[in-house]
Amino acid sequence: MTLLMFSGEYDKALAGLILANSGREMGMDVTMFFAFWGLCLVRDPEKMTLEDKSLYEQMFGMVTPKGIEDLPLSRMNMAGLGKAMLKEMMEDEDTPPLTAFLNGARKKGVQFYGCKLSVDIMGFKKEELLPEVQIITAADFLQEAMESQIQLFI
Amino acid sequence: MTLLMFSGEYDKALAGLILANSGREMGMDVTMFFAFWGLCLVRDPEKMTLEDKSLYEQMFGMVTPKGIEDLPLSRMNMAGLGKAMLKEMMEDEDTPPLTAFLNGARKKGVQFYGCKLSVDIMGFKKEELLPEVQIITAADFLQEAMESQIQLFI
Amino acid sequence: MTLLMFSGEYDKALAGLILANSGREMGMDVTMFFAFWGLCLVRDPEKMTLEDKSLYEQMFGMVTPKGIEDLPLSRMNMAGLGKAMLKEMMEDEDTPPLTAFLNGARKKGVQFYGCKLSVDIMGFKKEELLPEVQIITAADFLQEAMESQIQLFI
Repeated sequence: MTLLMFSGEYDKALAGLILANSGREMGMDVTMFFAFWGLCLVRDPEKMTLEDKSLYEQMFGMVTPKGIEDLPLSRMNMAGLGKAMLKEMMEDEDTPPLTAFLNGARKKGVQFYGCKLSVDIMGFKKEELLPEVQIITAADFLQEAMESQIQLFI
Repeated sequence: MTLLMFSGEYDKALAGLILANSGREMGMDVTMFFAFWGLCLVRDPEKMTLEDKSLYEQMFGMVTPKGIEDLPLSRMNMAGLGKAMLKEMMEDEDTPPLTAFLNGARKKGVQFYGCKLSVDIMGFKKEELLPEVQIITAADFLQEAMESQIQLFI
Repeated sequence: MTLLMFSGEYDKALAGLILANSGREMGMDVTMFFAFWGLCLVRDPEKMTLEDKSLYEQMFGMVTPKGIEDLPLSRMNMAGLGKAMLKEMMEDEDTPPLTAFLNGARKKGVQFYGCKLSVDIMGFKKEELLPEVQIITAADFLQEAMESQIQLFI
């Protein structure tokens, strides 16, 4: 399964990571390709830098979510209220929060790729991302996607 | 064909249901897996309940769309004006409204699944959904998806 | 590869067109099926008309983006500021703007289809779209999708 993670949104990240974790538990090979806003899912909140960046890249780095728990909802965000409700409901159901799903995917051996062009445009540096993330091109991604049985754009 | 219906939006619901109806008319097996906001497409507007729900689940049930005609547009909603325009234009073209597409999919034998985790988190009860909806896990869905030729995340 | 271009958003259009261009460079057959808001990607900005349209269709034609550079971002649009920043950053990296990717896809022989039902509902006329765009039904699209190895809903 290859998942193209385009949207930097809490609920879509949750959907993608649940599929990735489930897939690995079933023994599938799972690849996640983070592009555009999706890169915000694999930023390391401890490792932001402003060095060697243009003014636009610095501004962009500051206004985008710093890490996975910082992502907004795709709908009903309502100034964060919707997300607070969702997180509260997830705890009631003993569902692990998003970070736990992300770490689960890392431990279970989901392959993490970052889109080269997106990294370049957005001015993110490799050191700012989780160490597992390898940077590849769209063509490399398509090669993997062609060999997989399930492809989803999330 | 397996469609993962994630977004609870009028226009995306329309796109998914048109594909599902067309697929059945062509003789395909079609599966729709409703997760997160997508569950709002298969809520039965007549069967809402507040019983046995936490306060958050009650609030959530009240602020989310009650049924398929109640969904917002993904864009240009403009306080409902965009949707009114779209519906008006659909009537001009004799296109059946969204409920007709939903009922068409039910009659034509599209398989409806609800995501177990989403139902649990959002606090929806099985009785609040259309009777055709069977509750399955993400792993069950992936099993079906692997055997299908077309998979889309909508 | 078949791409169902549903969203009329600058960043998703960019993602879809980068995949389409990369796919063609790798020798893949690539089909883009423009439906709903996605039709705004293939409107010819020089060829708008108000003739033979209902009042709703006229209004709709005027409030929707006139061409590909006119699309909003899916997130962080911030009254156009986010898009201005993104375009500026793309220029810093010598990435061609969206129009260049669109023209690249046209020159490289990506197959462009418009969704018949969407064209009818939205009141767009064939002459208002780029000349390459052929109008087909959802069933025709599904036929192509079934024969392709990668399908994405963007």
